[in-house]
Amino acid sequence: MRKLKMLYEGKAKKVFETDSPDLLIVEYKDDATAFDGKKKGTIANKGVVNNRMTNILMQLLEKEGIPTHYVKEISDRETVVKKVSIIPLEVIVRNIAAGSFSKRFGVEEGTPLKQPSLEYSYKNDTLGDPMINDYHILALGLATKDELGTVSEYAFKINDILKSHFLKLNIQLVDFKLEFGKTTDGDIVLADEISPDTCRFWDVSTGEKLDKDRFRRDLGGESEAYREVFRRLTGQSL
Amino acid sequence: MRKLKMLYEGKAKKVFETDSPDLLIVEYKDDATAFDGKKKGTIANKGVVNNRMTNILMQLLEKEGIPTHYVKEISDRETVVKKVSIIPLEVIVRNIAAGSFSKRFGVEEGTPLKQPSLEYSYKNDTLGDPMINDYHILALGLATKDELGTVSEYAFKINDILKSHFLKLNIQLVDFKLEFGKTTDGDIVLADEISPDTCRFWDVSTGEKLDKDRFRRDLGGESEAYREVFRRLTGQSL
Repeated sequence: MRKLKMLYEGKAKKVFETDSPDLLIVEYKDDATAFDGKKKGTIANKGVVNNRMTNILMQLLEKEGIPTHYVKEISDRETVVKKVSIIPLEVIVRNIAAGSFSKRFGVEEGTPLKQPSLEYSYKNDTLGDPMINDYHILALGLATKDELGTVSEYAFKINDILKSHFLKLNIQLVDFKLEFGKTTDGDIVLADEISPDTCRFWDVSTGEKLDKDRFRRDLGGESEAYREVFRRLTGQSL
Repeated sequence: MRKLKMLYEGKAKKVFETDSPDLLIVEYKDDATAFDGKKKGTIANKGVVNNRMTNILMQLLEKEGIPTHYVKEISDRETVVKKVSIIPLEVIVRNIAAGSFSKRFGVEEGTPLKQPSLEYSYKNDTLGDPMINDYHILALGLATKDELGTVSEYAFKINDILKSHFLKLNIQLVDFKLEFGKTTDGDIVLADEISPDTCRFWDVSTGEKLDKDRFRRDLGGESEAYREVFRRLTGQSL
């Protein structure tokens, strides 16, 4: 399997065609951006952490019955995945108030929610990824009712699996963002990544942030935080 | 029935206690505001149109099985209503893309939606009435699942009833905002108003706007537009 034409370069990843029409190679970068690209930087080893962590978690989820786009890790930063057409929604699951949720609804960061919450953002840079609800999605034809049913069922199940997995590592899964895609067979599978770029992780004992908020909020130690989550997850040091 | 202490003065209405603990008197003003109160003005006779129109429509809805807070019209601008605790949500139903929906999702104003859409805003001036979804509402404890089920069922039913009623008057019901309250018996009833302040009305033949957008967008003729809707609804001129 080798990389052919680059199809897409995003903030944190490059995506390449391969010699198989149904497979792509994703390459993870160390580049970090925040606030719609207004803040830029790099986090040493982020690409390695995010690639390997995503792959470990996708394999864990597969075992628990969640289909994913994962196929095979081919290097520290590169993974073969199924080619999917991405559903243009960011799927955000929250257990504890933080970030934009706290700001938007005036709820102090750290407040546990009465139950996990799910929200969608319409993936559209020009519009600033606005929050969108089920009715809007159907009214605009961005996904079908059945697809939303599958996405929301998977999202809550993923939350249950990851929340308890991270709790064993003394990490609280505060919230996270998922993306789903449709395979050429029409199946909905988890795509994108699961990493400190896309999840809020708080150390249970100290409350210390172990995720991209260290970069967003200029807290420092972002590379160490990413590697710490990786160390707890794998037992390996980077 | 007489007005006692004023409980609340809003942008468009005053609310008074009465000698009955379960009843209030609402008084409709001609004052108009837009953009969170940044734009201010008056629309001649708006208070009369909105009061009488709301009462006619609430009685129509009652006949069709939707419980409302309406009790009795006591003057051109004053109505006795049941005292309810307002659920802190703006309930917005849309048939055609317009206003904030068009802006937020990049959909040209006037585009028919594939199906009616429902959305909630969290009524909170400090936060700017942010859009909120079912999961957030439950996670924050703003309403129960049963209450949301009732509210959404009523909202879509109200849309069906009003849409067909206005179509007979050669008016397209583009979108509208509702508020619901809970009576002392715990019943959910439609509250607030149904008027050109809270609905978008477009003339079917000309597309002319017959609602508060004339004021918001400096189109002029707002008083005439309000009275025109009233004339079609009642056969009476103001």
